Amino acid sequence: MNSPTATLLISCPDRQGLVAKIANFIYANGGNIIHADQHTDFDGNWFLMRLEWQLDGFNLPREFIAPAFNSIAQPLEANWQLHFSDEVPRIAIWVSKQDHCLLDLLWRQQAKEFIAEIPLIISNHPNLEAIAKQFDIDYHYIQVTKDRKAEAEAEQLELLKQYQIDLVVLAKYMQIVSAEFIAKFPQIINIHHSFLPAFVGANPYQQACDRGVKIIGATGHYVTPELDAGPIIEQDVVRVTHRDDVTDMIRKGKDLERIVLARAVRLHLRNRVLVYSDRTVVFD
Amino acid sequence: MNSPTATLLISCPDRQGLVAKIANFIYANGGNIIHADQHTDFDGNWFLMRLEWQLDGFNLPREFIAPAFNSIAQPLEANWQLHFSDEVPRIAIWVSKQDHCLLDLLWRQQAKEFIAEIPLIISNHPNLEAIAKQFDIDYHYIQVTKDRKAEAEAEQLELLKQYQIDLVVLAKYMQIVSAEFIAKFPQIINIHHSFLPAFVGANPYQQACDRGVKIIGATGHYVTPELDAGPIIEQDVVRVTHRDDVTDMIRKGKDLERIVLARAVRLHLRNRVLVYSDRTVVFD
Amino acid sequence: MNSPTATLLISCPDRQGLVAKIANFIYANGGNIIHADQHTDFDGNWFLMRLEWQLDGFNLPREFIAPAFNSIAQPLEANWQLHFSDEVPRIAIWVSKQDHCLLDLLWRQQAKEFIAEIPLIISNHPNLEAIAKQFDIDYHYIQVTKDRKAEAEAEQLELLKQYQIDLVVLAKYMQIVSAEFIAKFPQIINIHHSFLPAFVGANPYQQACDRGVKIIGATGHYVTPELDAGPIIEQDVVRVTHRDDVTDMIRKGKDLERIVLARAVRLHLRNRVLVYSDRTVVFD
Amino acid sequence: MNSPTATLLISCPDRQGLVAKIANFIYANGGNIIHADQHTDFDGNWFLMRLEWQLDGFNLPREFIAPAFNSIAQPLEANWQLHFSDEVPRIAIWVSKQDHCLLDLLWRQQAKEFIAEIPLIISNHPNLEAIAKQFDIDYHYIQVTKDRKAEAEAEQLELLKQYQIDLVVLAKYMQIVSAEFIAKFPQIINIHHSFLPAFVGANPYQQACDRGVKIIGATGHYVTPELDAGPIIEQDVVRVTHRDDVTDMIRKGKDLERIVLARAVRLHLRNRVLVYSDRTVVFD
Repeated sequence: MNSPTATLLISCPDRQGLVAKIANFIYANGGNIIHADQHTDFDGNWFLMRLEWQLDGFNLPREFIAPAFNSIAQPLEANWQLHFSDEVPRIAIWVSKQDHCLLDLLWRQQAKEFIAEIPLIISNHPNLEAIAKQFDIDYHYIQVTKDRKAEAEAEQLELLKQYQIDLVVLAKYMQIVSAEFIAKFPQIINIHHSFLPAFVGANPYQQACDRGVKIIGATGHYVTPELDAGPIIEQDVVRVTHRDDVTDMIRKGKDLERIVLARAVRLHLRNRVLVYSDRTVVFD
Repeated sequence: MNSPTATLLISCPDRQGLVAKIANFIYANGGNIIHADQHTDFDGNWFLMRLEWQLDGFNLPREFIAPAFNSIAQPLEANWQLHFSDEVPRIAIWVSKQDHCLLDLLWRQQAKEFIAEIPLIISNHPNLEAIAKQFDIDYHYIQVTKDRKAEAEAEQLELLKQYQIDLVVLAKYMQIVSAEFIAKFPQIINIHHSFLPAFVGANPYQQACDRGVKIIGATGHYVTPELDAGPIIEQDVVRVTHRDDVTDMIRKGKDLERIVLARAVRLHLRNRVLVYSDRTVVFD
Repeated sequence: MNSPTATLLISCPDRQGLVAKIANFIYANGGNIIHADQHTDFDGNWFLMRLEWQLDGFNLPREFIAPAFNSIAQPLEANWQLHFSDEVPRIAIWVSKQDHCLLDLLWRQQAKEFIAEIPLIISNHPNLEAIAKQFDIDYHYIQVTKDRKAEAEAEQLELLKQYQIDLVVLAKYMQIVSAEFIAKFPQIINIHHSFLPAFVGANPYQQACDRGVKIIGATGHYVTPELDAGPIIEQDVVRVTHRDDVTDMIRKGKDLERIVLARAVRLHLRNRVLVYSDRTVVFD
Repeated sequence: MNSPTATLLISCPDRQGLVAKIANFIYANGGNIIHADQHTDFDGNWFLMRLEWQLDGFNLPREFIAPAFNSIAQPLEANWQLHFSDEVPRIAIWVSKQDHCLLDLLWRQQAKEFIAEIPLIISNHPNLEAIAKQFDIDYHYIQVTKDRKAEAEAEQLELLKQYQIDLVVLAKYMQIVSAEFIAKFPQIINIHHSFLPAFVGANPYQQACDRGVKIIGATGHYVTPELDAGPIIEQDVVRVTHRDDVTDMIRKGKDLERIVLARAVRLHLRNRVLVYSDRTVVFD
């Protein structure tokens, strides 16, 4: 299992023979499939598949896989991505003042739960620089105000390029990322609280507490221009009672946020998530 | 444990000595407390308590307990209720076309999970009459249309009186109950689906499915004039994946609805729920 | 989606090209795959796959599919099963005195959550005959004592043949099924309580209560000669507190048992479960 | 809510008037109760109560509360403890080689989720010293082998005295603590994995994986001489599937262990746990 693998994520209009066609491509080149999972959305007539195979013994050199597969994919009008397990993705974590999600991600990366490098932390506050130092990660404090929002996003984008970042994780980054920014750098995962029922407006934990909810939740999702409405990767909940005041709810919510965000990031990094029409298929 | 008990549910502005005052009332009359639970809402400066004690050996005759306690409660500006465990409450179940919650409640009552009588089923459709017959319960089909809404509610209210109903359970009753009706008969429990995030408008399961949610929920609550916003008694959730189509979600949702509704009804019947300022304290 | 489908469940020693080989078989015969899922157990070097495809437009007549696939499967030393979605399996439910699992299964079958016929209920007690009558199902009371255990099992087996039963569901059947019986009729699903930690011996709920456990569970599994150790299909848990006495635990346990058993039966009936070396893969 | 409070945890044989007697003691001295919860174990005829009240305005000086209450408690043959919220308990964390529970506890203490000091880490391995340094905590490496077990425990006990430790938390400390040690220092909380069913012997995660369990659990409990059988404070579970190999199970298990241990420690530190006859009542 420790030999490098290639992973293909593919989606296209449904038609006969897709599984066979794609599996044949691997087999014809001597590949050993270690994971194949497929889903068909019948309402949308859409086919989605994840295939992972060992590169050892595969006859196609790595750089020829994409061009070779492209000749299969094009007639199918397919969207597809190819990933190699030994190409380690680079993450930038964006934070504001809260440290729970940041610390959790750093700890998991150290514990090798994620195969990823984290060379960069960006914040709109200077508060968490000490943590960055402790983990020997560059920390860039970029002030974000109404006046200099565009300027700040330009600086952020420049840093992502400079550090060759593949994925941005908003680990309780309390600023809205503009549609323009997302257009230029779309690989962004966010975590936010969720409630049953939902609460609109300021201080949702206080609203949830006042309303006496019995369950609070958290959602890890890709970021889209429409706020908190991007494709959902992972969700979970925790029970609360009247004994929990707002402080307790926030504490329980934090625990949930760090676990749900970590799961979402891990699913993404293992190339388990396929997005289509504002939703995801999670092949796990 | 099988001797009859009295239960006091009380709430009032917080002040010193409330636990002692109330417990003393029981003790002074020779009562043996079998459950005492208390909660203080510090934001609202509000005290809430549930006390249950055995009637065997209690020196006050049953009919004198309320007047005696009233003299304690009045100076405290307290709201309070007194219940006796051997006075069996009478439930009317209201349904439309779906039978899952109805059957579940009937089965649990037969299995003695609820101590309650269910002499009456009201529906705005004739469909479920066979079930009523099977369980030997009166079934009243009352058509509800825009034109005769007020008329229908008058008939419903008349039936509740006639059958001496203490609690109405809306077991997937797909009509809105008017504010006027609730004012006249406020003891109503409802079940409804909940989602993370919430979905407004028609066909929420389809919306949830299209959005790729990973969790669906259900909420059991008291009915207030503001739709689906009454005090929450119980909530729970179940996981879904992209493998679940709308039909699967509805099926999982039904399982959840019947369990959450049953829990909410049972908590109410055991006098475990205290409502204040649009929320509940559940002493369980 | 309502056209009939064929489902292939296959497992064999892992080797290159299995996904391609099997998918090609479907594709070559003009089949449209609607579900393909695969798992490789690397420790055991074992390949497992589920494939479902639409029979409409499939070029092979139904009766030729098995022979045709056999010529592919044999060289692979594969175990495999073929199921058609319009061949409705027949279930016998075995009970003792408790009715909660029985009623739940009957209700779900009526609600079409299961595509199955339930023509037969067998019990070692006469108690639940009224339910059988109510649902118009044959009820056979077969006394089981030490002396006539073999005789009883012969009668049970005879009934299964007579009613052409495909699956036995032990819905709180409180007798041990002998290894000899299982050898002759291996398709049996059972439900039993589970605890953290486990409790050996009589009255496990009392033991769990005495021990102050905070969680109780239930396990739905295939029956093997080793008691309660067969391949696990589904498990779930529910929280309990010190407020729950033994009666409460049993009540919560019953709720869990009926849901977990129903899920296990449904997974089996949808041909989602593959057993290998005393464990299952659940393709769901 | 930020004024200091006193908390009384009391248990004794059940009899009439206990709630009144104890509440009166607080009231007579001008105390404002902010939490009162009571439980009666009817099988064991045992009464248990937790009472918390504000010290501001309480007429008894702190040092006289215990003697005064003792005169009430003695005739009741009660066990009781008195805690003050501003007397910060001191914790020693014991570890072996795994750091996930240690890091989690340290992070939560920094985040003020626990009101406690952590001046001491003891380990039977030198591995985690760097973490201790990073958090500026003394780290004592005490080798534990069969030969020097008694000697090692003497050293450990000496350290607990020297650092004035109130609570030992075994955060994946992989050595058995002797009955002699526990007799001398009984306040020890441990975390261990739990499975449905349970697995005895080495490498339980491998056994659970081989068995195809669908759920794994963790239990936080007080340590007693009988291994892993002490009073349970908190438990929780997480779902696993055939997709999870042993590594995944261990990873999910770690997440669970740190959360369940943190909850157990927090409940203990907030004086929410009462132990009686090998089980707990958790007033939360």
